Amino acid sequence: DIRNLAMDKVAANIQFPCRYQNAGCTDIFFYQDKPDHEEICEYRPYHCPCPGASCRWQGSLEQVMPHLRHAHTSITTLQGEDIVFLATDVTLPGAVDWVMMQSCFNEHFMLVLEKQDKQDGVHTFYAVVQLIGTRKQAEAFAYKLELNGPRRRLTWEATPRSIHDGIATAIEQSDCLVFDTNIALLFSENVLRTIKRTMMVA
Amino acid sequence: DIRNLAMDKVAANIQFPCRYQNAGCTDIFFYQDKPDHEEICEYRPYHCPCPGASCRWQGSLEQVMPHLRHAHTSITTLQGEDIVFLATDVTLPGAVDWVMMQSCFNEHFMLVLEKQDKQDGVHTFYAVVQLIGTRKQAEAFAYKLELNGPRRRLTWEATPRSIHDGIATAIEQSDCLVFDTNIALLFSENVLRTIKRTMMVA
Ligand SMILES: [Zn+2]
Ligand SMILES: [Zn+2]
Ligand SMILES: [Zn+2]
Ligand SMILES: [Zn+2]
Repeated sequence: DIRNLAMDKVAANIQFPCRYQNAGCTDIFFYQDKPDHEEICEYRPYHCPCPGASCRWQGSLEQVMPHLRHAHTSITTLQGEDIVFLATDVTLPGAVDWVMMQSCFNEHFMLVLEKQDKQDGVHTFYAVVQLIGTRKQAEAFAYKLELNGPRRRLTWEATPRSIHDGIATAIEQSDCLVFDTNIALLFSENVLRTIKRTMMVA
Repeated sequence: DIRNLAMDKVAANIQFPCRYQNAGCTDIFFYQDKPDHEEICEYRPYHCPCPGASCRWQGSLEQVMPHLRHAHTSITTLQGEDIVFLATDVTLPGAVDWVMMQSCFNEHFMLVLEKQDKQDGVHTFYAVVQLIGTRKQAEAFAYKLELNGPRRRLTWEATPRSIHDGIATAIEQSDCLVFDTNIALLFSENVLRTIKRTMMVA
């Protein structure tokens, strides 16, 4: 009927504030554009970037580093653009995460190495880097992960993930450095494996 | 007894010719050293280096290239140290091999991309380079396989295999470039995937 049509027309022309207005977002959107924005809104709360579901912390981007320093004190931080990441006990059973922070270019990056057990006894390792920052900030960087063995080198170069997006999807889609136990052992001196990571402004 | 001991002593001091003497090997060995040598003897017949078990050809190293040219006419050969390998139809079901020859540095290299179907629907791709030559000749080279995607690059660098050793063990042990369907599709423009290969004298 005419009245509903008129109301629809009004609704289509009304702009609504982002649901994260209280957190600081001043953007307004037509109704149909709101969900897409809110998915990537920079004011959407950040989750704790540590892998695994054990920490339920949420907060603003500015609060992430203080949270990590206070609640995840076991994580080592290394300074510099080029670091060596040593993961020990790579043959431990079960799903295991190794985490390290790297500080360079006035930013903080989190390197995650995750091992998942597969049914056939061969385990899969996933290594990925995420920036403690927004997706836009992350796009200014590239990272390189290198596994070095005798006369062999495996390299993965990509844009760091933003912790706003997290790393679960990247691991699920193999959009990271992926290797199996054979390679992990081939590239290890006993139980050590080396990952060198280079940060470059893209 | 004394006699047997004396015979053992004699046997231990006798040198035997390599079993590939008729093929040209002039080396002689103490009995206990023979098997190790014969495993890597350069005069051991070469098998056809094409992946899969369909071709039963054997012959000398010098006969391998003529065999490939006459019996495997569908294999493309590209000249140069840096080539692009395009594999189409990467989502075809079943075990599939893509093969290409690369000629550079007066040598012939065979690039093999092999897809194996895994039980969980995710397929695994293995890419590896072998030299039509001896293991010693292969050690003078290094190769690099690169998969390039949007803001992503996966690289594998290693010494080429000799066709005397073959590639089956390398694939079995993941001692090559390994990636799954997700990466293959992520790095493809539609159904094409690019592998760039660089040969360098090590
Ligand atoms: Zn917003
Ligand atoms: Zn936390
Ligand atoms: Zn011999
Ligand atoms: Zn053949």
